[in-house]
Amino acid sequence: MAQAQKITPRAKDFSEWYNDVVMQAELADYSPVRGCMVIRPHGYRLWELMQRALDDMFKATGHENAYFPLFIPMSFLAKEAEHVEGFAKEVALVTHTRLKATGKTGAQAVMPDPESALEEPLVVRPTSETIIYAMFAKWIQSYRDLPLLMNQWCNIVRWELRTRLFLRTTEFLWQEGHTAHATEAEAEAEARQMLGVYRTFQEDWMAMPVITGRKTESEKFAGALRTYALEALMQDNKALQAGTSHNLGQNFAKAFNVQYQTAAGGLEYVWNTSWGVSTRMIGGLVMTHSDDNGLVCPPKLAPVQVVIVPIWKSEEERGQVLGVGDKVKAELAKAGIRVQLDSRDSLKPGAKYFEWEAKGVPLRLEIGPRDVAAGQVMTARRTGGKAPAKLEGIGGAVIKHLDEIQAALFQVAKDRREAHSIRGVTKQQFLEFMKGTGGFAYGGFCGSPACEAEIKQHTGATVRVLPDPEFRSAEAPKTCLWCGKPSVAEAVWAQAY
Amino acid sequence: MAQAQKITPRAKDFSEWYNDVVMQAELADYSPVRGCMVIRPHGYRLWELMQRALDDMFKATGHENAYFPLFIPMSFLAKEAEHVEGFAKEVALVTHTRLKATGKTGAQAVMPDPESALEEPLVVRPTSETIIYAMFAKWIQSYRDLPLLMNQWCNIVRWELRTRLFLRTTEFLWQEGHTAHATEAEAEAEARQMLGVYRTFQEDWMAMPVITGRKTESEKFAGALRTYALEALMQDNKALQAGTSHNLGQNFAKAFNVQYQTAAGGLEYVWNTSWGVSTRMIGGLVMTHSDDNGLVCPPKLAPVQVVIVPIWKSEEERGQVLGVGDKVKAELAKAGIRVQLDSRDSLKPGAKYFEWEAKGVPLRLEIGPRDVAAGQVMTARRTGGKAPAKLEGIGGAVIKHLDEIQAALFQVAKDRREAHSIRGVTKQQFLEFMKGTGGFAYGGFCGSPACEAEIKQHTGATVRVLPDPEFRSAEAPKTCLWCGKPSVAEAVWAQAY
Repeated sequence: MAQAQKITPRAKDFSEWYNDVVMQAELADYSPVRGCMVIRPHGYRLWELMQRALDDMFKATGHENAYFPLFIPMSFLAKEAEHVEGFAKEVALVTHTRLKATGKTGAQAVMPDPESALEEPLVVRPTSETIIYAMFAKWIQSYRDLPLLMNQWCNIVRWELRTRLFLRTTEFLWQEGHTAHATEAEAEAEARQMLGVYRTFQEDWMAMPVITGRKTESEKFAGALRTYALEALMQDNKALQAGTSHNLGQNFAKAFNVQYQTAAGGLEYVWNTSWGVSTRMIGGLVMTHSDDNGLVCPPKLAPVQVVIVPIWKSEEERGQVLGVGDKVKAELAKAGIRVQLDSRDSLKPGAKYFEWEAKGVPLRLEIGPRDVAAGQVMTARRTGGKAPAKLEGIGGAVIKHLDEIQAALFQVAKDRREAHSIRGVTKQQFLEFMKGTGGFAYGGFCGSPACEAEIKQHTGATVRVLPDPEFRSAEAPKTCLWCGKPSVAEAVWAQAY
Repeated sequence: MAQAQKITPRAKDFSEWYNDVVMQAELADYSPVRGCMVIRPHGYRLWELMQRALDDMFKATGHENAYFPLFIPMSFLAKEAEHVEGFAKEVALVTHTRLKATGKTGAQAVMPDPESALEEPLVVRPTSETIIYAMFAKWIQSYRDLPLLMNQWCNIVRWELRTRLFLRTTEFLWQEGHTAHATEAEAEAEARQMLGVYRTFQEDWMAMPVITGRKTESEKFAGALRTYALEALMQDNKALQAGTSHNLGQNFAKAFNVQYQTAAGGLEYVWNTSWGVSTRMIGGLVMTHSDDNGLVCPPKLAPVQVVIVPIWKSEEERGQVLGVGDKVKAELAKAGIRVQLDSRDSLKPGAKYFEWEAKGVPLRLEIGPRDVAAGQVMTARRTGGKAPAKLEGIGGAVIKHLDEIQAALFQVAKDRREAHSIRGVTKQQFLEFMKGTGGFAYGGFCGSPACEAEIKQHTGATVRVLPDPEFRSAEAPKTCLWCGKPSVAEAVWAQAY
């Protein structure tokens, strides 16, 4: 294992801090492949826990998992005009299928065999609307086949020039839901429902408060009718788009001829939705909760929820504290808690604390000889606070700690977000805010893409969402914060990842 | 949904029968992408159940999941000479990263942008030894870091010319375990342990009996020291390689410089193993158990273990039988059984039976008005046999049925395999056997690759494994069944998928 290194403080360099936290927690590592990362076991376990929670919610809302091809014929992408334009600059293209010896040695020993060139290049999926709706056209015949509710967990490739671990990588893991409905209203309800599922997950599991709403025309998904999104505010006051849900209208249905026979015998195009969240959420989790000692992980998603660190000097003490540690571990495991006992001889307790803190374990239990004598353990929360707890009934006490930590993380993040949100801003206030700390600025918007572009150019801020009713200001803004023309909708502006 | 169609009988055309079973059970479908299939919800659920069982076994033996890049630099593959030679003819190569408008319309609207050509093409992983061991070199410093036990669930691409649903597709899903050890003995023990894990899974979960053993030099994995495999006999008496486990020796450690400091302070190369099973197992499951009515699925892996079909004529009866059906469903679900109640109005009971049989549901419960009156249901096993069962204690009765079906499927498959195995064959017997029904032929082998090649040319049979002791014949063969020279090992020969 690499030596533990100091983590750059947030105040010094947020971006460095983020990389340090991810690396020290062993969530991910850089790979020798440009723009691609390796998700290490601690990070992958976190992803598995996220997947399990989300997958249960997808299944509870009637969706089934399936798997579609990694490769998409280039011509499929071209069938939906906005779609191909949106992805043209970032697709990996497979053009050959064999290697040929060059006669040279070492790294130059092989080259693509020119004779294996494909007639039609294949695109490595940047998203799967085209290939999935081509299949839907085959499976959907009548209104009885609707709604068709599917989901796929898979890897995705978008050729990114500037990459960041989890936040923006050439390859990432995600899920993409794809559905077909008989009516526009049903598709709209589905897109909104899944936005709600994401919000529940991100707030209740990730303890990451989000604002939901609609994207503007210039920020919507390439090929969608309407895009809804969830936006969270990171500790550097930049917004992170944490998930999207699209009402695709009949755009793809028309491009791929997905029609169904109505009960009355007519022929209609279906209405599609698609929605996705990705490993990017891990980056959001890190930047929402972590501190200068490393990762802070909400208990519900922590790969290790509790670590037990026994403390001893003599061999006799060692036997005692390990004996108690084993018992506590068994009791917690039985209660369904993800627990580890760190019995390593090679590290002192302080070094162990340091390591587990960096890995984001929410609760540490220290067991020393005096604790054993007193029939207790010392509890130490990752987020601060130490207190003794009786060995008897330790399971219940630990669960209470974890629940409280989970709730507190959400509240702290929400308070922080609200402290960095301003409402009803004038142009001058907006400029100062965006030049200063930044955050979420709520203001009137004229709806013009030109105005949007000008604001982005001057401040780096974009419309994150036209917020849903519950997030809107008590008084609707009357004029655009930038141009002063009548406002068509309140908008939330921020600089973003 | 597509109309239910007749399944080609096995006796008429085994290959057609297989495709029909897969399609009618809605396990998979052909995609518009050459050689790639779509795994439909019923098939994907089966894969999820396989994954869950295997993943638990991997974790129980100390392995952790991680995720490595889809792309491998071409030069990495070239670093291990046998490895690149083994895969050169079947790799998908990414060479460009942008699309460019051609000015044409429709399918020809875009082309790869020549300006986006990569300096070094990327190989879409056909297996991940090279990229994973490049990372191991970074993570492993000392003997304290060993053993390193990892696994990855992912998609894999091998450019196949002749493809078959699940059995051989350009893209498939699998898991690949990758480990590093301090000594050859530990690596060997790991490779053997994982072969045992696979056997337990395939026999206890898939109810598919397997023979284990070592591959010959000509059949081993490209870059391995030794390859172990599991071989099952399909109903057409062809063998299916159902999984492999490799002791890679120090071949990759030397190519990627994976060294560790020993306790004594010296520097040594690690010993690696890799092992994998794939969605191909689904094909094996289908061809082991299914019949002319469609899929037969072992209960432990059946996406739907029990289907309840209510039978009614009047509205009053409908209310009665559905009421009882709901109760039974709730009771079975509570007992952890995967159960569905088919309450569709649009289909008659017989049509429902037909559909669920094709989908391989192990047990059907029929509930008619007379059953309700008698306080019973009628049970019908997918594998044959009907009997009434009391409603009281139905959960226990169903579990007993499922356990018995699971056990019987394994026994029937094992008996079939043994009925199609011959031992101690002479050359003449061997030729007749391979020209006739085929199956597993146990015979002496001189160890010469030339002899092996000649046998393959004449009979289409290959050495599946040099079997492990428990599978060997009571009397060791003395001479090679083909050339008559002294035998160095007993071999199991068969025509294979």
